Amino acid sequence: MPSRTFIPVPHTQVKIDDSFWSPRLKVNREQTIPHNYEQCKETGRIDAFKLEWKEGMEPVPHIFWDSDVGKWLEAASHSLAAHPDPALDSLLDNFVASVAKAQQPDGYLNSHFAVVEPEKRWRNLRDAHELYCAGHLIEAAVAHYQATGKRTLLDVMQRYADYIDFVFGPKPGQVRGYCGHEEIELALVKLYRVTGEKRYLRLSGYFVNERGREPNYFALEAEARGEDPTRFPYEYNQSHKPVREQTEVTGHAVRAMYLYSAMADLAGELNDESLFAACKTLWRHLITKRLYLTGGLGSSWRNEGFTRDYDLPNETAYAETCAGIGLVFWAHRLSQLECDSEYADVMERALYNNVLSSVSLGGRTFFYDNPLAATTHERQAWFSCACCPPNLARLLASFGGCVYAQSETDVVVHLYVGSHAQLSVGGQRVGVVQETAYPWQGAVTIRIESESPIRFGLRLRIPGWCRGAAVKINDTDSKGLAEKGYVRLEREWRNGDAVSLDLPMPVERVYAHPNVRADAGRAGLQRGPLVYCLEACDHVAPVNHLALPADAPLTCRFDPELLGGVMVISAEALRVDEAEWGKDLYRPHPARTTSAALRAIPYCLWGNREVGEMAVWLRSG
Amino acid sequence: MPSRTFIPVPHTQVKIDDSFWSPRLKVNREQTIPHNYEQCKETGRIDAFKLEWKEGMEPVPHIFWDSDVGKWLEAASHSLAAHPDPALDSLLDNFVASVAKAQQPDGYLNSHFAVVEPEKRWRNLRDAHELYCAGHLIEAAVAHYQATGKRTLLDVMQRYADYIDFVFGPKPGQVRGYCGHEEIELALVKLYRVTGEKRYLRLSGYFVNERGREPNYFALEAEARGEDPTRFPYEYNQSHKPVREQTEVTGHAVRAMYLYSAMADLAGELNDESLFAACKTLWRHLITKRLYLTGGLGSSWRNEGFTRDYDLPNETAYAETCAGIGLVFWAHRLSQLECDSEYADVMERALYNNVLSSVSLGGRTFFYDNPLAATTHERQAWFSCACCPPNLARLLASFGGCVYAQSETDVVVHLYVGSHAQLSVGGQRVGVVQETAYPWQGAVTIRIESESPIRFGLRLRIPGWCRGAAVKINDTDSKGLAEKGYVRLEREWRNGDAVSLDLPMPVERVYAHPNVRADAGRAGLQRGPLVYCLEACDHVAPVNHLALPADAPLTCRFDPELLGGVMVISAEALRVDEAEWGKDLYRPHPARTTSAALRAIPYCLWGNREVGEMAVWLRSG
Repeated sequence: MPSRTFIPVPHTQVKIDDSFWSPRLKVNREQTIPHNYEQCKETGRIDAFKLEWKEGMEPVPHIFWDSDVGKWLEAASHSLAAHPDPALDSLLDNFVASVAKAQQPDGYLNSHFAVVEPEKRWRNLRDAHELYCAGHLIEAAVAHYQATGKRTLLDVMQRYADYIDFVFGPKPGQVRGYCGHEEIELALVKLYRVTGEKRYLRLSGYFVNERGREPNYFALEAEARGEDPTRFPYEYNQSHKPVREQTEVTGHAVRAMYLYSAMADLAGELNDESLFAACKTLWRHLITKRLYLTGGLGSSWRNEGFTRDYDLPNETAYAETCAGIGLVFWAHRLSQLECDSEYADVMERALYNNVLSSVSLGGRTFFYDNPLAATTHERQAWFSCACCPPNLARLLASFGGCVYAQSETDVVVHLYVGSHAQLSVGGQRVGVVQETAYPWQGAVTIRIESESPIRFGLRLRIPGWCRGAAVKINDTDSKGLAEKGYVRLEREWRNGDAVSLDLPMPVERVYAHPNVRADAGRAGLQRGPLVYCLEACDHVAPVNHLALPADAPLTCRFDPELLGGVMVISAEALRVDEAEWGKDLYRPHPARTTSAALRAIPYCLWGNREVGEMAVWLRSG
Repeated sequence: MPSRTFIPVPHTQVKIDDSFWSPRLKVNREQTIPHNYEQCKETGRIDAFKLEWKEGMEPVPHIFWDSDVGKWLEAASHSLAAHPDPALDSLLDNFVASVAKAQQPDGYLNSHFAVVEPEKRWRNLRDAHELYCAGHLIEAAVAHYQATGKRTLLDVMQRYADYIDFVFGPKPGQVRGYCGHEEIELALVKLYRVTGEKRYLRLSGYFVNERGREPNYFALEAEARGEDPTRFPYEYNQSHKPVREQTEVTGHAVRAMYLYSAMADLAGELNDESLFAACKTLWRHLITKRLYLTGGLGSSWRNEGFTRDYDLPNETAYAETCAGIGLVFWAHRLSQLECDSEYADVMERALYNNVLSSVSLGGRTFFYDNPLAATTHERQAWFSCACCPPNLARLLASFGGCVYAQSETDVVVHLYVGSHAQLSVGGQRVGVVQETAYPWQGAVTIRIESESPIRFGLRLRIPGWCRGAAVKINDTDSKGLAEKGYVRLEREWRNGDAVSLDLPMPVERVYAHPNVRADAGRAGLQRGPLVYCLEACDHVAPVNHLALPADAPLTCRFDPELLGGVMVISAEALRVDEAEWGKDLYRPHPARTTSAALRAIPYCLWGNREVGEMAVWLRSG
C-alpha cells in the first residue's frame, strides 16, 4: 500500500553552500523575485486586488493574474523563511491585507471575476482558471504561514477553500465540477497538511476522482453555455476518462503534471493503490515515450503539450518551463512514496537542464519554451501569460527541499549539492553535511554530525547516468545494499563519520530511441546530470554545419571565466565547406567537409551571451 | 526592355496524349471538377449567390466562398473548351445566370457582403478578400468566354471591374487601397487581354504600384476601424514596402506568388524594366533560399508562408498546394518574358512534385499542405477554407498551356509531354507532335507537321537536372545553339522532320545547401523531374529507421501494377535493429544496424495506399 514514507527535509532546514546552486539561489532571491514583483506591479496584477476596475479601464484584470501573483507570493515567502528581510515581510503583509480585502462576503476571491464578469462566476470551469488561481493562492498562503507564522493569508484562503468545499462536490445542490487547469488539487493537500483539516484532503480527492467521469462535466457546462460540447478535445485537460483509467500522458503538459502530482499526493495520504498504479503507468509512458533529453516535456505549442509517442522535435519543442517544474513536483512526490532512483533521476534531469535553462544568469529574463535547437530564441523579461517566471522563482526559493528526505528509519540523499541539512532522527538532532563540486565533479563527501551515535540507514542515490560508482565509509570501501538505485548504508553513525561517494563523470554521447525521428543519426553530449549543447558564438561555422564523428575523442576542461565557471567539452569535428558549396540550394553531390573545433557548454547556460543558433543533438559525422 | 515575347500556346490547341498526364487530366475532368461542384453545392457556396441568407441562418456565406466557386467555374470552363459537354455547358449557364442576378445595381458582386455585412463593403480590404474574390470571378469569366464564346459572365464581370475601377484609384474621391490578398491584379491583365480595354491594365498597374507605399493603406484602414495599425506585420501581404523595393519573398506564400505573377504580367505588357528587375531579384531569392526540393514553398503554417532563409523544415512544411500552383503561374509568366530554362525548370519541379502530390489518384481527396515528411498526414475531401481543390482543378484543366510557347520567330518546348500542338507560324499552320514516355524515360521525339517548308527556331529545354543531353535531327547528331538552357535549332523545317532528344535520367542523390538545417546529413532521391520518397507501406521497418549509405547503388525498375504504373527506385539500406534497442528512450551507445531493402516511389504518388510515415530526405548511412 502506498504511503508517504520518504518525507522531504524542508528547504528551511537545508542550507545550500556550493559554487553551482548558491549563486543561482542568490540571483533568484535578489533579482528574480523582486523582478517578478515589479512586473506584477507594473502590469496591474498587484493592484487588481483593489477591485477598482470599471468598464472601459485598461488593463482589464485577466483570469490568469491571481495565479501569477500567488506564485510570486509563494516564492517571496520561501525566500523570507530562509533569509529574513523586514522590507519584504512588510511588503507581503501589505499585499496580503489587500488580498484579504478583496475577499467577497461569501469567501470567494478572484480579482477578475469579482469586478469584470461577476455574473460568470463558476460558469466556465473548463477555461476560466478560477480554481487554478485559488490553488496558487492557497499554496502561497501555506508558504506564507510556514515562513512567517502569520495566519493572515492562511485564514483568508481557508475561508475561500471552505466556500469552494461548500460549492463543489457530489452532494445534492453542489456543483459536480472540477477545474480545467489542475492545481487546486495539490494545493488542497498542502492546506490539509498545514491545518490538519481532513475536509481539504476530501475535497482534493473529490476533484481528482470526479475528473473525466461520464457525463463529462465540461460537456454539460459547454452545453449550458450554448456551445457544441463535442468540439473540445478533453484529452487537453486530462478529463477524457477517469484518472485511474488514464494510461498515457496527454494534453497540456503543465495541467498533466499538476494533476499527476495531486494523484501522487493523494495516493500517499489515502494509501490508494489504484491511484498510485495509475501514476506509475503514466510515469512509465512519459519517461519511455514523451520526455526530452533535457527533462522538458510537451512537443507542440499548439496544445502546449503532448502529441504522439516519440514525437520530440527539437526546434519546435515546447518544453515549457512550467511543465519541467511540474515534472519536478511530480517526480519529487513519487519519490516520497517509493525510494526508487528513477524519480530523482528525472527530477535531476529536469532541474539541471530544462528548468535552469529557463532563466538567464542575471535572473531577469526567461524562456517560456525551452527548445533543444534554436536560431533566434531569446529570453524575455515578462509574458502576457506570465506563468513561468514566478513558477521558477518559487521552485528555486524552495529548491533545498528537493535534496534530502527521511523516513522513520532512513535518511535519503536524492541530489548531490554542497549543503548542510538539520534533521531529527528518532528525536535526535542529526546534521548531514555534503561537500561536493557537483555537477562539475562526481566526488561527494557526506559527513554526519551527531552528538551521540545513532543508528539509521543512509540512502545515497546512484544516478542513472553513472556507471562504476564507488562508496567508502571513513576511507574504507563499502558496498552497502543496492536498493532501487540507492546504496543503503545502515550502521550506527558517529559524529564525524564520513561517506565518500565517487561518481565517475566522463563525457558521454547519448542516443535517442530509433523511433525519435528528430534525433535519428544524431548524438547528444552529456556529462553527469548536464546535457550539453553547441552555441553559435563558440564557433566560426554555423552550428548546423558541424558533425561529430562517432570516434572523435571528447575532452573537457573547466573554464572559470566562462559563464560563471563551467566545464566545457571539446572535440575535433567536421564542418561543411560552405565556400566550396556556393549558392545552389540543391545539387547532386554532397558538401565537402573539413575539420573544425567543436565546443559544447551546458544546455542550461545557453543564450547568456548572444542570440544565435543552438543545438543539443549533433549529427554523427 | 521586357516584353511578352514567348506567348504560351493555349491549352485548347494542345492535345495531350501520353501515359502520365492523360489519365490524370481525365480524372481531373471526370472526378475532381464534378467533386468540386458537389462540394460547393453541398456547403452552400453555389446557392449563396441567390442572396437569400438572413440573420440566424446557417451556414453564413463566408468571405472566401466566391473565390472557390470562381475557381471551379474557371476549371469547368477550361474543361468544356477541350471536351464539349452539353450538361456541363448548361450547368454553367444556369449558375452564371444566378451570379448575374446577384450583381448589385452599381455593379458590386459578392455573396457575403451583399447580405451578411452590406455596411462593411470595402471597409477591410486587408482581410475581407473582396477584390480577391472579384479576381477569381474575373478569371472565371475570361475562361468561360474563351471556352464558350458566351459573354454572359464576361459582361457581368466587366461591369464589376468597371465599378471597381470607379471606386479605386489615385484620383480625388477614389479609395487609394488595394487588396490584402493579391489576385485581382493578374485577373485584370487577363481581362485586358480578352477585351482589349486598357483601363483594366491601368487598374492592375495601379493596384501593384500603390501596394506598400507610405502611408500604408492598411494602416490607415485599421486606424479607421479603431484598431492599432502597428500590430499587423505588413510583410504578411507584401505591403511592407513598394513592390520595386522588395528583394525577399516574404509573408503568405500564395499572396506572394499571385502578386509576383501580376508583376511579371505588367512588366511584359508595359515593358517595365524596374518591375521585371524586382521580379528577378525575388525569383533569385526564392530559388536559392526558400524553395523546397518538391517546388513547395512556405515553411510555416502560422503565416502560411515564408519564414527565414534556409528554414525548410520537412515535417512541418506548409508547402501549400495553392502556393505551388502560384509558383507555376509565376514561373510560366516569367518564361514569357525571357526564355531561360530556370523558369520552366522550377515550373516543372513544382508541377511534378508539390502540385501533383496534392491530389489523390482518385481525384476526390486533396492535401492542403504538402510536407516532405509525415506520419499521419491524409488527403481530405474538402476544407472549410477550400482554396486548394478548385485551384488544382483549374491548373490541370489548362495544363496543356504550360507545354509550348511561341515567339514571332520561334517555337518553344518547355515541357516534355506526349502531345500534339497546333500552331500558326507566320500565318502558316504547323503541327508539333511530341512522343515520349516522360517522366519515366528521357527519350523525346518531336515531329514537325507542315504543308510546306517553313523556317523557325525550335527551342528545346534542357532540364536543369539533366547532364549529357543529346539532340538529333532526322537521326543526325546536332548541337544546335545553347541559349539560356534551351537548345535552339533553326532551319527550314519540312513535314515529317523529326528531332530526337535524349535526356539521360539516372537515379541521383540530391543534397541541400549546408544552411538547410532540416536536411543536414540527408540526401533526397531524384530521377528526372521526379522527387522520390519512402512510404511506410513499402517497408517492414519504420521509414525513419532507414539510412541510405552514401555508396549504396541505386537501381530502378518500372512497375506497371503499382499506382497506375511507376518507376520504383530500390537500394540496399541500413536499418536500426529496434529489438536490440529495447525500451529506453535514451542510452549511451548507438543503435545497432542491419541491412534492409529500401524502396522509393515518386513523391507525387505518396499517400495513395495507406496512411503512414513518409520521408523525402533520407539519412545518409
